[in-house]
Amino acid sequence: MTTGTASARTRLDPARRRTQLLDLGVGLLATRTLDELTIDLLAERAGISRGLLYHYFGGKHAFHEAVVRRAVEDLVAQTAPPAGGEPLERLLASMTSYVDYVTANYEGYASIVRAAQGGHEALRRLHEQARNVLTDRIFTEDAQGAVIPDTPATRLAVRGWSAMTEELVLTWAADPGPVTRDQLLAAVTGSLPALVDLLR
Amino acid sequence: MTTGTASARTRLDPARRRTQLLDLGVGLLATRTLDELTIDLLAERAGISRGLLYHYFGGKHAFHEAVVRRAVEDLVAQTAPPAGGEPLERLLASMTSYVDYVTANYEGYASIVRAAQGGHEALRRLHEQARNVLTDRIFTEDAQGAVIPDTPATRLAVRGWSAMTEELVLTWAADPGPVTRDQLLAAVTGSLPALVDLLR
Repeated sequence: MTTGTASARTRLDPARRRTQLLDLGVGLLATRTLDELTIDLLAERAGISRGLLYHYFGGKHAFHEAVVRRAVEDLVAQTAPPAGGEPLERLLASMTSYVDYVTANYEGYASIVRAAQGGHEALRRLHEQARNVLTDRIFTEDAQGAVIPDTPATRLAVRGWSAMTEELVLTWAADPGPVTRDQLLAAVTGSLPALVDLLR
Repeated sequence: MTTGTASARTRLDPARRRTQLLDLGVGLLATRTLDELTIDLLAERAGISRGLLYHYFGGKHAFHEAVVRRAVEDLVAQTAPPAGGEPLERLLASMTSYVDYVTANYEGYASIVRAAQGGHEALRRLHEQARNVLTDRIFTEDAQGAVIPDTPATRLAVRGWSAMTEELVLTWAADPGPVTRDQLLAAVTGSLPALVDLLR
């Protein structure tokens, strides 16, 4: 039972407050690298004290990990393929969402991939989990194996394809000059069955 | 003018001694991660003092950087395609050398890629340079554009293909069960013109 704005603010459910702060952090990350997303910046934008942020997140690394976990959840949700349609059409829809996500969140996404591939162990695990979720989806969304039968060889193919897709989309988003978005999408989508055919 | 073994050892040309130490370091790296390749270990295997190694390399980071630079030179040299033959045959020969290199040097190579993609700035630059050398070679070795014309779009395709190849070969070398070496090579080699066709 809140009785006014100031009171509502202080009494806001901690879990909800944390969620709001993470949403704000993910939004700030779209146009900033992870290094640029400091607790000071978030405190300033949220209009609350650094001390309270430390209370919610425990420190810079834990804060970054929580923001990245939320960003990964967003990425996975936003790239979910549509419920109906042909497998390749659904893959194209999913890849379209992926390209749009990377374009809209380039700075943060590129810095997460860089940090994840390297020394930051917690981010590396999150990045690996995200890849696994996205890779598994290729198979669960295509349970009949219309595009790709689920075998160890095709799992290897999808893993290579994921690395290629990440590199292609990140490179293209940094400098889209060479090809159109449609060309990029056609290449990303079309290369999966091509690579699976080569490795099957 | 050396007059005996002990004397020859102390008087050995510093550049030659450094080269020998780097060769030893690269050899040790084949079955070890970069973190496991310590100055202590090299000193023990070379039979010289840690102090002398610090004199030659200046510190752990500079030592690792020198070893990785040498390893990259080896990789580039060993994967040079043969002088004659059809473009796709020469690509297959080069990729065969790459797969064999990664297989023979798995521990060190995987750890270099991990370190390079992440926080270690000097290694990241070396890794990027190596990728650029290997990418440029695709075009200089195929100056007539028989397989791939040199355009911004095909440069993008080769960049994505390189990331895929690195991931495929590293994953396969860690667990070669799913496909044979020949299947892997056919997929890596065949996917380049396929991807270029998709992006051209």
